[in-house]
Amino acid sequence: MNGAESIVQTLLDADVTTCFGNPGTSEMHFVAALDRIAGMRCVLGLFEGVVTGAADGYGRMADKPAATLLHCGPGLANGLANLHNARRARTPVVNIVGDQATYHRELDPPLTADTEGWARGVSAWTRTAASAATVGLDTATAVQAARSSPGRIATLIAPADTCWDEGGVVAKPLPVPPPPTIAPHRIAEIARLLRGGEPVLLLLGGTALRSAALEDAYRIAEATGARLMAQQFNGRVERGQGRLPIRRLSYGVAPSLAELAEFRHIVLIGATPPVAPFAYPGKPGHLAAPGTSIHVFARPEENMPDALARLADELSAPKLAVPRAPQGAGPGRGNVTQEAVTQTLAALLPDNAVVVDESVSFGRLFFNGLAGAAPHDWLQITGGAIGSGLPMATGAALGAPGRRVVSLQADGSAMYTVQALWTQAREQLPITTVILSNRKYAILLGELDNVGANAGKVALDMLTLDNPAIGWVGIASNLGVEAARAEDMETFADLFTAANRRPGPFVIELTI
Amino acid sequence: MNGAESIVQTLLDADVTTCFGNPGTSEMHFVAALDRIAGMRCVLGLFEGVVTGAADGYGRMADKPAATLLHCGPGLANGLANLHNARRARTPVVNIVGDQATYHRELDPPLTADTEGWARGVSAWTRTAASAATVGLDTATAVQAARSSPGRIATLIAPADTCWDEGGVVAKPLPVPPPPTIAPHRIAEIARLLRGGEPVLLLLGGTALRSAALEDAYRIAEATGARLMAQQFNGRVERGQGRLPIRRLSYGVAPSLAELAEFRHIVLIGATPPVAPFAYPGKPGHLAAPGTSIHVFARPEENMPDALARLADELSAPKLAVPRAPQGAGPGRGNVTQEAVTQTLAALLPDNAVVVDESVSFGRLFFNGLAGAAPHDWLQITGGAIGSGLPMATGAALGAPGRRVVSLQADGSAMYTVQALWTQAREQLPITTVILSNRKYAILLGELDNVGANAGKVALDMLTLDNPAIGWVGIASNLGVEAARAEDMETFADLFTAANRRPGPFVIELTI
Repeated sequence: MNGAESIVQTLLDADVTTCFGNPGTSEMHFVAALDRIAGMRCVLGLFEGVVTGAADGYGRMADKPAATLLHCGPGLANGLANLHNARRARTPVVNIVGDQATYHRELDPPLTADTEGWARGVSAWTRTAASAATVGLDTATAVQAARSSPGRIATLIAPADTCWDEGGVVAKPLPVPPPPTIAPHRIAEIARLLRGGEPVLLLLGGTALRSAALEDAYRIAEATGARLMAQQFNGRVERGQGRLPIRRLSYGVAPSLAELAEFRHIVLIGATPPVAPFAYPGKPGHLAAPGTSIHVFARPEENMPDALARLADELSAPKLAVPRAPQGAGPGRGNVTQEAVTQTLAALLPDNAVVVDESVSFGRLFFNGLAGAAPHDWLQITGGAIGSGLPMATGAALGAPGRRVVSLQADGSAMYTVQALWTQAREQLPITTVILSNRKYAILLGELDNVGANAGKVALDMLTLDNPAIGWVGIASNLGVEAARAEDMETFADLFTAANRRPGPFVIELTI
Repeated sequence: MNGAESIVQTLLDADVTTCFGNPGTSEMHFVAALDRIAGMRCVLGLFEGVVTGAADGYGRMADKPAATLLHCGPGLANGLANLHNARRARTPVVNIVGDQATYHRELDPPLTADTEGWARGVSAWTRTAASAATVGLDTATAVQAARSSPGRIATLIAPADTCWDEGGVVAKPLPVPPPPTIAPHRIAEIARLLRGGEPVLLLLGGTALRSAALEDAYRIAEATGARLMAQQFNGRVERGQGRLPIRRLSYGVAPSLAELAEFRHIVLIGATPPVAPFAYPGKPGHLAAPGTSIHVFARPEENMPDALARLADELSAPKLAVPRAPQGAGPGRGNVTQEAVTQTLAALLPDNAVVVDESVSFGRLFFNGLAGAAPHDWLQITGGAIGSGLPMATGAALGAPGRRVVSLQADGSAMYTVQALWTQAREQLPITTVILSNRKYAILLGELDNVGANAGKVALDMLTLDNPAIGWVGIASNLGVEAARAEDMETFADLFTAANRRPGPFVIELTI
């Protein structure tokens, strides 16, 4: 058995069964091993940003890591932006990065680069394998690191000879410790705070946003008068009818300041302290009101469902049905507006869908507006590195088999990793993509104002994408995905319904 | 004047007049400054790999740096692969990377990443600006570093407040030392070697591949019996009728070993020692024959044209006209073959074209086969990070105004940075792109054999791009570039001739 075979078998033994890849010369033995060892689903992406973004989407839905297969430092570099998003989402990912043979690296051939250095910025665990005999154990250690709560990125750099040399040893899966539980005194402390009568916000993130944990959070809130809110950027939220219609902290400094102004205490439950995504001249960076106390109840890696259940019991909070979110008024009609698109999505979302949200500026109403839609999971861009949506939808479809993925996608961001559509076609994945085509970087037009920059013609030209206009129907169909355009709400509703009934992918270009 | 304005004016004063960018929030003041300070040509790319690859192409042709404008760590990360190629080509590039405000970074908002760490792997010079008062001087220092021979990558990270704060100070251009000249004793040593009668190869790279230097190299070779060859990967070679038809070291271990076997000495003139691009089991990494002595005559940063002229004079080598390359037999006919395409390109290449070569496996004959074509410059992928061709062509067109760019492009690599076509359309750049569509990663099929990996169906599936087929005509036209398909040589010749007469871009999908 060579080293590559030991990697593949070790991954499979640790229940890593899907590999997104774009291999090169140094990965050929890994690729060849896939024919000798059955069980790994290998999915080709035509750019590494697709590969890593798909691993992010897969990990969010499967609650276990996919592997990526990347080629040398530059292949890893192409995938860094979506690994950055995955790191912010706390998604488990195991990167296998092929590289120059151990003894060849010092000759500095063209593709030699600082692979380890680039990996460290996104990886909780990074190692360069030393030999075929040990690369199996390295792989098991990488999976262990990736699966450690709350989900981490582990990068194993495998020089070509550690893959092709004989003497590979399959390593048994290493134990993954469960998420740490909260100490009793912390339960008691937060219970005391909640009984104190001061205005408290419970700010939720991570696994606190799964439906059972949300039900306990709701019991706590109802029993104490505390308020609940999800943090701004979340890897996954369980949403829709029958689940708590929790709101999310708004984007933008002014609205989030207003939302947080009333609280004397903010209790973090898998959330990070609320801060502005960027600094703006003369505006605060911390979004909590001055004098607000921030309490860490559960860190992202801790067992939040358990902590919330115990806190609810400590407070003797009665079991309650979560409130029903208001039903929408049915599909929007006429012109394409934010409100009308929100209504249509809320009315027509398939049952048990996975929504992937990189709608950026146009989609600000979507999250709250779909609270009354059919039950669904909501995955959003978490690290601000655009180009996450199409790949994430691709991976989510494989991480949540049998569910329709609805990919709500801004056009400027879609262009970053448009190659993902080809993988959706190749794998015939059940994904409905809605390209929100406004032919501009709309968010930046607002940001020009926010930072107090006075823009003229040259500046505005740098933010507009209408010269030439991008033909999304043509791009999608030439990458193998059927597509159609909608310019009014009736056409959009018809296309959306028909698309969601298909077995494979479909792209709707929605002119906004 | 704010910091951003001081950056823009300092760049202009240092003759950096073109900026390729994809800005975000932290770059809005730079963008706004472009309207208040005239003279910067700002070119939008819809992905950062386009931005940095265009800067590479520009720098190779203009012999001076363009600036890039990138958004935070992830924006830089998206551009790293083509910066890696630029570093290998020794192209001057000045990266301006906006980032979190100095005082906001510690709050770790979503887009915060290890910007400096990622920059260092490709940059000879990296600095994070500390204030608006000093960012102008930082900019001048970056340009100085980028322009230092032979051309380097300089990365200035500009936190948002260093751009928006008032108090910016324009810095005067800093002196750029000329390329170091070779000491007389080194001229004498190599002259002695060349007179010694043993078999010597002069292996050329960098500025030794410009036409005047090549003429002196030819004088030396004719006077001494030494042989001349270009190294495998070169940023720019001046080629075609009237120039020396220098050959390039072949790709692949076996042919390059054969080409180098006869030499007792290899003299490096701006070249690096010949090594295999990857290790292969049982094959040597060094390509020079055992016992061959490697002599460094001129390092890449030294003044090679001067060194070659002085060496020729030292050897009393007479002035000579360079030999004429054989004229081709005219355009190829019938089926599309490597030989026929080479003939057509040789016969129909526009005068004074810039050829950008990312043809990978199909184009192995192109370089030598076009030696007799109309005079042209030859730019190739230098770092092995695919996705360099379409962006490089985009930048080369702006770095060499008035010249037609012919972009010879493998399909798999083209998909990496396909967004470049949109910029070509937007700027109406004079570029003829030939997509060599073989619907596979053909080079890897060979590499499977080279590394001794036995591939089965799963492995081969990972290297084929025909499910679904990619419609290049449709993709190009939906990105605003006119396009047509050729499946025989007559159609290709007609399209190539017509395309080259247009003012703007055109894409030919050539089925191979």
